[in-house]
Amino acid sequence: MFSTAADVCDWLAERRAINDYRVKEVPLDQLDGWRIRDNGDIGHRTGRFYTVTGLEVTGADRPVGSWQQPIIDQPEIGILGIVVKRFNGAPHCLLQAKMEPGNVNMLQLSPTVQATRSNYTRAHGGKPVPYLDYFLAPRRDSVLFDALQSEQGAWFLAKRNRNMIVEVTGDVPVLPDFCWVRMDDLGELLRIDNLVNMDTRTVLSGAASLRQVSGEAAQRPRHTVAELLSWFTEAKARSSMKRRRIPLAEVSGWAHEHGMIKHHQDRHFAVLGLEVLASNREVTGWSQPMIAPRGYGVVAFLSKRVRGTPHLLIQARMEAGAFDAIEMAPTVQCIPDNYRDLPAGQRPHFLDEVLSAPESRIRFDCVHSEEGGRFYHAQNRYMLVELPEDAPEPDLPENFVWMTPRQLMGFVRYGNHLNVEARSLVACLGLSADSPALQGRSVA
Amino acid sequence: MFSTAADVCDWLAERRAINDYRVKEVPLDQLDGWRIRDNGDIGHRTGRFYTVTGLEVTGADRPVGSWQQPIIDQPEIGILGIVVKRFNGAPHCLLQAKMEPGNVNMLQLSPTVQATRSNYTRAHGGKPVPYLDYFLAPRRDSVLFDALQSEQGAWFLAKRNRNMIVEVTGDVPVLPDFCWVRMDDLGELLRIDNLVNMDTRTVLSGAASLRQVSGEAAQRPRHTVAELLSWFTEAKARSSMKRRRIPLAEVSGWAHEHGMIKHHQDRHFAVLGLEVLASNREVTGWSQPMIAPRGYGVVAFLSKRVRGTPHLLIQARMEAGAFDAIEMAPTVQCIPDNYRDLPAGQRPHFLDEVLSAPESRIRFDCVHSEEGGRFYHAQNRYMLVELPEDAPEPDLPENFVWMTPRQLMGFVRYGNHLNVEARSLVACLGLSADSPALQGRSVA
Repeated sequence: MFSTAADVCDWLAERRAINDYRVKEVPLDQLDGWRIRDNGDIGHRTGRFYTVTGLEVTGADRPVGSWQQPIIDQPEIGILGIVVKRFNGAPHCLLQAKMEPGNVNMLQLSPTVQATRSNYTRAHGGKPVPYLDYFLAPRRDSVLFDALQSEQGAWFLAKRNRNMIVEVTGDVPVLPDFCWVRMDDLGELLRIDNLVNMDTRTVLSGAASLRQVSGEAAQRPRHTVAELLSWFTEAKARSSMKRRRIPLAEVSGWAHEHGMIKHHQDRHFAVLGLEVLASNREVTGWSQPMIAPRGYGVVAFLSKRVRGTPHLLIQARMEAGAFDAIEMAPTVQCIPDNYRDLPAGQRPHFLDEVLSAPESRIRFDCVHSEEGGRFYHAQNRYMLVELPEDAPEPDLPENFVWMTPRQLMGFVRYGNHLNVEARSLVACLGLSADSPALQGRSVA
Repeated sequence: MFSTAADVCDWLAERRAINDYRVKEVPLDQLDGWRIRDNGDIGHRTGRFYTVTGLEVTGADRPVGSWQQPIIDQPEIGILGIVVKRFNGAPHCLLQAKMEPGNVNMLQLSPTVQATRSNYTRAHGGKPVPYLDYFLAPRRDSVLFDALQSEQGAWFLAKRNRNMIVEVTGDVPVLPDFCWVRMDDLGELLRIDNLVNMDTRTVLSGAASLRQVSGEAAQRPRHTVAELLSWFTEAKARSSMKRRRIPLAEVSGWAHEHGMIKHHQDRHFAVLGLEVLASNREVTGWSQPMIAPRGYGVVAFLSKRVRGTPHLLIQARMEAGAFDAIEMAPTVQCIPDNYRDLPAGQRPHFLDEVLSAPESRIRFDCVHSEEGGRFYHAQNRYMLVELPEDAPEPDLPENFVWMTPRQLMGFVRYGNHLNVEARSLVACLGLSADSPALQGRSVA
């Protein structure tokens, strides 16, 4: 247990020093345990874990409406779970200092349990997953949050994980590499670059959705929840996007060269092979293919007071691999480098507003990593940019809408509404006690 | 506009007399406009409308865990919409006397708009869909309800329609075959066999979800909404069912004989061809393949007071074709004849309790048709059977849970939670002003 966020950082640095990790790039065709099938797909020799395959998208409502791409197919549903316990009345989360090979700094704060079904059924013969029993039925403890949530739709084919928060009252042994972190310190920790991993952030968006916010009753949302649900339903019904899994060898515009798979303009991402040596993970060494995005991403909410009430600008965003194609996403979500040569009309909506915002309007700005178990050095700059209350309201494309933070969080508990990037931002903003996005008070 | 439910019935009888409809069975290989492809799939020559294809299911948590079957593939999202308008303060629904070839009585009350995307984009060159503009953006009127909802998962592959209720304040011209029906009369009309069609019922479940129920604050639910969502998430995560579309010609256990496709034991359903002649539909004649279930279905809620509060017994039910595999379903949902030879342990849970209930315990009992545009003479007996408050609580399999009617209705607005059979029952019970399932008062 720690008394401050600084103590958590010290402890993480110490764990990082104690443990010994090495990661090196290996050509995809020399990855131990994996093989490239005749159709080009990259799969594990056991048929387990995941497969890198191909996806064809047509009819998308994007500047480029049709394309093919590599994608990770991992149909099983894993568990991302956080054990919560009150000490002296204050809720604490049991978090883990976990190494993931894709993390720029190797070790980040992960949930109590972060396990694929292969992990917890021990498909690779590793050690049992600690604390797993708190999340499996039948359980004695109280489930505060439990929803299936999507993960990166640009890189994963219909991937979902079960996000759970379980409040425990009995004694919980604290294993090495685990620690209790005060819920109230998480807001501060989420403002530190690359410290709280994606899996923790998505589960914490569930915690944010449970929070009561002061001044909420006085809020005057622009739209009712019925109107927001209608806007969301309409976006789904309007979509004529079709997708089809295709063999990786048939994906056009991408090539297998020098042991990795790259886009012909070296945009978007590459698929590369990694060999991992670690001293304290479930197994002590392994190899795996990963997705390595080309360039930093930007994930941002534009916010604005509407009749005194803070609102966020939300996008109904199509993702190639998303389970239901369309989810509620941040105002801006892209890798800006992919659009660097395009005329203004073809650049993502509101990207330039976010990137050119003066510092005085930036309420949140922090770099976080995406899932380091599948994505290599995938970093996004998460931002909240507030427009002045008296600024004219921007014209909104039909797939954008203003909603209050509280309305957005209300959708988190039903699953499959917010994409993972939106949930990350919700965690960052929703757990900050002083978040201007949540409060009714002025920040101008 | 009508003053009583009886007037609505008279009007429907009159419309039925005026219009001239004929339906006759035709061998599948002689269906005008349709053809049987080399792989056995039955599709329209234009490639539009829908296709009858094959589905393979494995790993299902059912007494029979693996099977193959014909299924309807119709990936497009249609609109089921009801225009609501207040007259003297009382909300009225604009409904249509609509012929569907699969209805046992041809003509039933359908929503204001009941249109596939092919319909309203006029793929078959028919007349424009009346009242469609009330449901298309941009619209002036107020959307009360708007959600994507699944349809029969046993017969449809991932079919979803957009269910909408729009409240209009301006003048609405009433076309022939349309009428205003008082919302308060719908509870009574829903107690008449084969009168309110499936499309109307599913939209009306949305209306039921908007209703305030007296005595609600005094309810003491057995479980919190968080617990119910966790139970639902767990059922989805537990499922290891896999499905794969296969050519219809490869479906084992089914055979193309005498112009139709039948199960080798003549169970479940047949696929047959129909030729239709009608005087007042969008087009005056057409042919189509349909699914004809073998035998009546039973769709029932068991209800019971728990600590004085009425609860319904809900099943997390896997359906072969359901969009997300698992949905909240009635306690019992099956065609009893399919299980007639099985030992008690392999018969559907609670079926015998429902079928053997004394009349004094049956609170609702009415036969309704399923979608008459795709299903031929598909009738289900919809029931509410109340267990005595002092009866011992039945042991529940892990995929069953007690919830209050209000909790169940709360899930309707988020879409993809309740299956179409549960929504039909919700409409029947939720719109009955005197429904014992909804009220806190005693009915024993």
